[in-house]
Amino acid sequence: MDRLIEKIKKFMNPTVVGLDPKLAYIPNYMKKESLDSFGNTFKAAADCIVKFNMQIIDAICDVVPAVKPQMAYYELYGYDGILALYKTISYAKSKGMYVIVDGKRNDIGTTMEAYSRAYLGKTELFNGEKHSAFDGDSLTINGYLGSDGISPLLNDCLEYDKTIFVLMKTSNPSSGELQDRQFKDDESVYEHMGNMCEKWGKDTLGEYGYSKVGAVVGATYPDELRKLRLKFPHTFFLVPGYGAQGGSAEDVVSAFKDGVGAIINSSRAVLCAWQKNDCEPFQFAEQARKEAIRMKNDIVARL
Amino acid sequence: MDRLIEKIKKFMNPTVVGLDPKLAYIPNYMKKESLDSFGNTFKAAADCIVKFNMQIIDAICDVVPAVKPQMAYYELYGYDGILALYKTISYAKSKGMYVIVDGKRNDIGTTMEAYSRAYLGKTELFNGEKHSAFDGDSLTINGYLGSDGISPLLNDCLEYDKTIFVLMKTSNPSSGELQDRQFKDDESVYEHMGNMCEKWGKDTLGEYGYSKVGAVVGATYPDELRKLRLKFPHTFFLVPGYGAQGGSAEDVVSAFKDGVGAIINSSRAVLCAWQKNDCEPFQFAEQARKEAIRMKNDIVARL
Repeated sequence: MDRLIEKIKKFMNPTVVGLDPKLAYIPNYMKKESLDSFGNTFKAAADCIVKFNMQIIDAICDVVPAVKPQMAYYELYGYDGILALYKTISYAKSKGMYVIVDGKRNDIGTTMEAYSRAYLGKTELFNGEKHSAFDGDSLTINGYLGSDGISPLLNDCLEYDKTIFVLMKTSNPSSGELQDRQFKDDESVYEHMGNMCEKWGKDTLGEYGYSKVGAVVGATYPDELRKLRLKFPHTFFLVPGYGAQGGSAEDVVSAFKDGVGAIINSSRAVLCAWQKNDCEPFQFAEQARKEAIRMKNDIVARL
Repeated sequence: MDRLIEKIKKFMNPTVVGLDPKLAYIPNYMKKESLDSFGNTFKAAADCIVKFNMQIIDAICDVVPAVKPQMAYYELYGYDGILALYKTISYAKSKGMYVIVDGKRNDIGTTMEAYSRAYLGKTELFNGEKHSAFDGDSLTINGYLGSDGISPLLNDCLEYDKTIFVLMKTSNPSSGELQDRQFKDDESVYEHMGNMCEKWGKDTLGEYGYSKVGAVVGATYPDELRKLRLKFPHTFFLVPGYGAQGGSAEDVVSAFKDGVGAIINSSRAVLCAWQKNDCEPFQFAEQARKEAIRMKNDIVARL
């Protein structure tokens, strides 16, 4: 996790901007350009998504250390959308940003190896030659299948200096239906998942004491966040739910210890700042930057 | 689930072939063709994967009711791989096969809506126009996030006559690390997931008594399979783990009640039959058909 932590320290900004580019967030003039070029197609949608993302990245890359593209919003446009994801990842990396691919992938061992190679490692082509398919810095993971589904990722994390974030306690209203239930020894499902994260990460600790196996813990459950920060000292947290989902800066500070240990995500509030602030469409990137800086200050002031 | 059940009845064959096309499974002469056309690229890999899948589909589509492409093996080749997935789904559907997209997707509500539209429903483009991105018949799902992550899928399942399969008890060796743990009331995590499946599906029961919310239960845990079949009478089972993973026909029969209630998956044993039987590479499709028929007979004889 050192590479991410160092970027956070450099910018003194423990936040990540979620690139969840719904068409409704994109200014009409950009959509019109793509529509004129490619008609009412997935290709047109993908085209304006890439342009939108690139301008957002340009506007925030000197103040925000990381972006988190949410795969669903790219898969929505078929293979054109996946090409847009690829271009977004490449562009963000070319600007020095740390890219957390939010795919919440999960499967049995052999299949997880394929996901791991696709997003973190390298894909073997013909005659053993290896190429990167997406080359993200990190991938979000669902740990429901246990250790088999994690081991292949650890190999690539070590070989290519990458990380994963495993779902522990998610930010959505129904997360408790399974995650809050308690086992006979009083441990909850999400605590059990946290224990597994500590175990999976134990041989990958970095300079700052955090392993390559982080966890997703929602800002919308601040009491759990506080408890989990103390309980899992080597697990770095990716915290969604700040802003549009209802989590406040006060809620997220408990994810930190001595000012480190977490990165807070905001997607909608940054991407839609121009709409929320009733600005001109062409101001979308400038407004995203303003909101990203406001968010940084909001959180850093409380650390 | 009626559409799938009817296809199963028509062929008297409760099996599905997993399309997990590793390059190692594909005959060299096919790989050479693609390599000659496109060089050592993702495009070449995707090209021979599509050709391989199409010949497998041609060889089995009059005896097997369904295919299950595993997304990881397409994502491995970037957007070229996703184009191969799209072509595979379209081709299988054009041959009348039921397509279960094995993506084990999961996320919070708004994001799940995007996954649901991508794989089961339709994507809204510009001016409200809607197009299908992948148009699968079914999608596998991880239910760790609870009901919010399921509701958007149910809407598309009802509107477009699709289904989902939620992971209950998976076939991998470490599945028990979380799934077997028991809550204070003696219920295990996988039973809890099964109860949620019954609840999520309750308003979508079809003619055969099964809902649109199926569940994944591994053949490698036959005792659990038997127990779960009795406990969850409205939940149709997708059963991986037969064949290469070690599950036998005796193991999987307990997934059925009165001859229905489940579909058994085999991937490797079918795709690699030509290698296992030491046949000529050009016989791969014919050998896949033979293995698919052998598997059908193996299972049907015990129902």
